[in-house]
Amino acid sequence: MKIENTVDAIFTRRVSEVIDEPSIKTKLVSGKQLRIKYGIDPTATSFHLGHTVPLRKMREFQDLGHIGVFIIGDFTAQIGDPVGKSDTRNMLTLQETQKNAKEFVAFASKFIDMSKTEVHFQSEWYNTMTLEKSIRLMATVTKEQLMRHETFRKREKEHKPLGFHEMFYTLLMAYDSVMVHPDIELGGPDQKFNFLITRQVMEKFGLAPQSAMLLKFLSGTDGAEKMSKSSGNFIGMSENPDVQFEKIMKIRDDDIVNFFDLATSVAIEKLQILKSNLESQKLHPIAAKRCLALEIVSQAHSKEEANEADLKFFEAHRQLKNMI
Amino acid sequence: MKIENTVDAIFTRRVSEVIDEPSIKTKLVSGKQLRIKYGIDPTATSFHLGHTVPLRKMREFQDLGHIGVFIIGDFTAQIGDPVGKSDTRNMLTLQETQKNAKEFVAFASKFIDMSKTEVHFQSEWYNTMTLEKSIRLMATVTKEQLMRHETFRKREKEHKPLGFHEMFYTLLMAYDSVMVHPDIELGGPDQKFNFLITRQVMEKFGLAPQSAMLLKFLSGTDGAEKMSKSSGNFIGMSENPDVQFEKIMKIRDDDIVNFFDLATSVAIEKLQILKSNLESQKLHPIAAKRCLALEIVSQAHSKEEANEADLKFFEAHRQLKNMI
Repeated sequence: MKIENTVDAIFTRRVSEVIDEPSIKTKLVSGKQLRIKYGIDPTATSFHLGHTVPLRKMREFQDLGHIGVFIIGDFTAQIGDPVGKSDTRNMLTLQETQKNAKEFVAFASKFIDMSKTEVHFQSEWYNTMTLEKSIRLMATVTKEQLMRHETFRKREKEHKPLGFHEMFYTLLMAYDSVMVHPDIELGGPDQKFNFLITRQVMEKFGLAPQSAMLLKFLSGTDGAEKMSKSSGNFIGMSENPDVQFEKIMKIRDDDIVNFFDLATSVAIEKLQILKSNLESQKLHPIAAKRCLALEIVSQAHSKEEANEADLKFFEAHRQLKNMI
Repeated sequence: MKIENTVDAIFTRRVSEVIDEPSIKTKLVSGKQLRIKYGIDPTATSFHLGHTVPLRKMREFQDLGHIGVFIIGDFTAQIGDPVGKSDTRNMLTLQETQKNAKEFVAFASKFIDMSKTEVHFQSEWYNTMTLEKSIRLMATVTKEQLMRHETFRKREKEHKPLGFHEMFYTLLMAYDSVMVHPDIELGGPDQKFNFLITRQVMEKFGLAPQSAMLLKFLSGTDGAEKMSKSSGNFIGMSENPDVQFEKIMKIRDDDIVNFFDLATSVAIEKLQILKSNLESQKLHPIAAKRCLALEIVSQAHSKEEANEADLKFFEAHRQLKNMI
């Protein structure tokens, strides 16, 4: 299966919503090399298949000659909830953060072109940020604007307290963009508010506001709307090939096309054929899942390991193998 | 007229409200040398008689052996409203700030004992404050707590925008106390909210919370509740003796006792006599105002200049002089 990228697919495949699409189109036509930002939270101890959706979108841009810009959120991760934490605890978190960041880069390098990627740690600019600069950052927004954040509104509605520093965190994510001046930022649909604030902050700092692409959530292995570590419905990228293969074979039949669409580079034309063959029952869902599992395990590990996992899986489920 | 200080008078004279009075009383009895904080805004280009009310309260404490701690709010003054200000503009403001601070100290030294006074500039700690420390400061309060500020509530009610940095300023004033660990802070009744937040912030940083004394507002020369520069109803401390004398002779008769009470050190027993003599018309209001003017101009300038202003005033108002 061949990786195919067209400018059209960039705006549609894996995409839930584009913020300021005209500006991206103008830039693409101009031939400018674009900077594609994606920020990650290094408090996560493992990455899963859901994280590959933005990585594949970044790769699509890289295949057109553009630059990926990773932000490792080590500063905010290090601070966490600052109340009641001793300095010793923070030191530990700093080490963890760096370890997790390394793991992320190793994982990401399987999906994107690291020769066209910049990696930045937030601490590059936040360890030396002056109070004056922080206040200039705060002055770019009003309380009312920050309170439009869905999570904040929900807490207000439920009369739950909202730490003043939690409101500030939104601004730190925005300021990352002031520092690395991306053309486009990638993230989940839940990042829409943050991306709009980021655009405002960039403009207040005299920069052209970034565009943004909200990418679709990959479903969980249980059919839930979103794959996530906390829901336990994820396919971990560091899990062994057999576990990954097994988990993919168990996803809901209705999610097969979606998994191919979001979590592989299978060409859109082939997706159409896959879809109609599944609908007309020319293709058995198990055969389709087997292709999916081979594809995904190959990327996470290697073709050889994927083939071994395939053999093991069907050896253990002989009756299933006979069905194909 | 003799300056008299008693522990009783400390809690009542010029005082509108005391926050955590038991803690002050315990400390006074313990014989501990207390630290009395008063913060000033160096954006003001002139000081007026209203500012002498907290200074006289500080002096009362100093006469009992305690230490005055001035905070010059140079950092917040320098930042001001940071939106749209160039660096050049800030440089100018820094110079102005230092000039105004010098003027304030010169003026304050006429009312308090500078040998028992520490002067601190906020910039001592804010110029080098890390972002991590700022976030720890933010984490000491919730959005809900900050929004209890009357000014903020009013703006919310009127649907006027509130800059996120404006909410943060309250925390900077509070953090000043974390840095200089005062036992008591002095301020106007409008500072109550800030002082309560300060107590909370100090506790979150592991310090004993300061007490506070809210001092009464001195009336304006027009009889308004509060003397202030913006209302134009003030007696400026750098105005010349003749102008000061003239302004004091024009205050409302009903405010005479109040001016003696708040803006002079005349003993409380004498205030009682003054009050009853005015009520029984044994004492003409003009004679009382003349005493007041002599007292105030003497402190602002000198006894000699006060006497000269007195002569000039009554020379110019012969008919009034004949009335006494």
